[in-house]
Amino acid sequence: MKISILKENLLAGLSIVSRSTSKSVTLPILNNILFSVEKNFLKLSATDLELGVRYWTLAKVEEEGAITVPAKFLVNLISLVPDKKISLEVKNNILHIEGKGYKNQVKGLKAEEFPIIPEIKSDKSLEIEGKALSEGLSQIVDTTSPSQARPEISGVYFSLEKGTMEMAATDSFRLAEKKLSLPKTSLAEKVSLIVPSKTIREVVNVFGEKQGKVKVCFSPNQAMFESKMEEAPHPQTQIVSRLIEGEYPNYKEIIPKKFKTQLVLQKQEFLNQIKAASLFSGKINEVKLKTDASQGVLEIFAQNPDLGQSKSQVKSKIKGEKINTSFNYRFLIGGLVNIKSKEVIFELNGEEGPGVLRPTGDEKFVYVVMPIKSS
Amino acid sequence: MKISILKENLLAGLSIVSRSTSKSVTLPILNNILFSVEKNFLKLSATDLELGVRYWTLAKVEEEGAITVPAKFLVNLISLVPDKKISLEVKNNILHIEGKGYKNQVKGLKAEEFPIIPEIKSDKSLEIEGKALSEGLSQIVDTTSPSQARPEISGVYFSLEKGTMEMAATDSFRLAEKKLSLPKTSLAEKVSLIVPSKTIREVVNVFGEKQGKVKVCFSPNQAMFESKMEEAPHPQTQIVSRLIEGEYPNYKEIIPKKFKTQLVLQKQEFLNQIKAASLFSGKINEVKLKTDASQGVLEIFAQNPDLGQSKSQVKSKIKGEKINTSFNYRFLIGGLVNIKSKEVIFELNGEEGPGVLRPTGDEKFVYVVMPIKSS
Repeated sequence: MKISILKENLLAGLSIVSRSTSKSVTLPILNNILFSVEKNFLKLSATDLELGVRYWTLAKVEEEGAITVPAKFLVNLISLVPDKKISLEVKNNILHIEGKGYKNQVKGLKAEEFPIIPEIKSDKSLEIEGKALSEGLSQIVDTTSPSQARPEISGVYFSLEKGTMEMAATDSFRLAEKKLSLPKTSLAEKVSLIVPSKTIREVVNVFGEKQGKVKVCFSPNQAMFESKMEEAPHPQTQIVSRLIEGEYPNYKEIIPKKFKTQLVLQKQEFLNQIKAASLFSGKINEVKLKTDASQGVLEIFAQNPDLGQSKSQVKSKIKGEKINTSFNYRFLIGGLVNIKSKEVIFELNGEEGPGVLRPTGDEKFVYVVMPIKSS
Repeated sequence: MKISILKENLLAGLSIVSRSTSKSVTLPILNNILFSVEKNFLKLSATDLELGVRYWTLAKVEEEGAITVPAKFLVNLISLVPDKKISLEVKNNILHIEGKGYKNQVKGLKAEEFPIIPEIKSDKSLEIEGKALSEGLSQIVDTTSPSQARPEISGVYFSLEKGTMEMAATDSFRLAEKKLSLPKTSLAEKVSLIVPSKTIREVVNVFGEKQGKVKVCFSPNQAMFESKMEEAPHPQTQIVSRLIEGEYPNYKEIIPKKFKTQLVLQKQEFLNQIKAASLFSGKINEVKLKTDASQGVLEIFAQNPDLGQSKSQVKSKIKGEKINTSFNYRFLIGGLVNIKSKEVIFELNGEEGPGVLRPTGDEKFVYVVMPIKSS
């Protein structure tokens, strides 16, 4: 392999693919990035065997070839070389990195030993705005559970039907759902899949900052997310991931269709007072909530025999029954930080029924949270 | 104690004094901040027994008194309450923190149990611009050694004489010296003292961002740094510290008065290439330096059998002998990051003699670094 490339292009690619390497002791090549050449492009690839990322960037190719080199090391090195054209050449499994005033030689591992990242051939695919997809996923991905006992809830659930993409995540104490419209879809039938949360975080990172469409393809065992590159026979960035097998819980049943009490609160003020109360909460992270309709306030209370106690009042529009209940503050905060509107709707269903947090003026996001049951 | 105070004033004070608390298991009160009242001021104090910090801020005082409360906890809490007037009241060793819409009670420990931070009564004092003092100290403090075997080099050495303040730090592999002019000094004789590096870091933090003079007082065992408050009978912020006993090494002897080779290099380029080479260096952090006067460059070389090798050239004005030597890259970087000029002067004294890094156009800072001796 012998190519030349601009520093900024190389660094942009390295920073995207290097996140998907794996610190495997048994398979050290997973720590590496695969450099290979496709026509006028340098292709960078990385995988942890569950997730693979590929990135194509324009280069001046003199000679084809391939090598794998340690990812972090290379990112550190390339960020320090002068901001100009860089020449990359492979000789005897050594990557020669040269430019004006410097010559670096980095020992690599053979490209042939790098695991193959599968390609998906599927007629099931759709296109969606990358930014909307990333923003939507970022609102729910932290609600997944790292549980190994129930692998199906360790991922994000996608349900695709009739121009709508529904995405859901739960850790069994709380549930987040986001809906997106699909402007154009070739889906003939309903499709559902569970994508690992690590893949989702990469989708958020890779497609969150760019304008443009993302194509999503899926086969029974895999999903692929890719952004287009103009006039190229391949995408710009491609993420391929295995899917999680299993039956996703029928979460729609959990989302309450009614409420006994409805509050409308200033989100930031509510969030700050929950955080202040959290400092006083004990081992089970309990904060108590009580409405006072006569004053038009929600009262927040927490106490801890070692530290003291906190009581605050947040102005609230209040509809329905009086409420007196408790929540785990982490679960309330997890919902509130993903609500983008200035005001938040908080619907409650008695002391033991699920609560619902929703933005005002937006039906596309909903967050369900279970109260702490009084013993 | 019963006072009211603005949130921003309280938070400014808490963030300054809270850094000097100590996580002592045997003396948990060191984790606390002492609240007390002096006329129209709230006084905040913290100490780790070696270092004490006091901060005065205006408050509306209704009733005198005092209490100590956990520092970190209080910083977190006060940053979350609404940005308005806060009422603080002590009842039964509980600090009641109240404002519009909230009432917090924080359990404290008795003020009487808080260690006394000594006051220095001394006629030896001087005044210096706080920003210049902080900037100068920040250039040398990281060159101190955490060595417990040689406590005298764990601090910064001050030598005061004839309108000049000389400050030095060393870890025995390298040495940094900074000189400041004293526009006004009442010192009749030469004074020298060793101040612990933790105190120096607090001086940098506290006085680095503010305009105005800092008064420095010293007794045989202690030093005090304080900033003035207009029309108040006490300072704004005061740092009191024990001094380190012992004889500071006669470091002036180490600073070379001559050189065999003098280089003048672009600082950022030199720093980047040392950093790039450092990625390839082995266990002893060695990078090799060699001049090539015919090309007007300094060559930087490092290699590691596992990773590969790096060779780069940095343009340099070169005077004197040809050089071929090795340095620990950490020590070179430690000097270069504290040089503020665009160009750096690097003077060398053969393969085994000390090297000197200096800014161009500034005689006030010098950094001496020993090469790695060839075995």
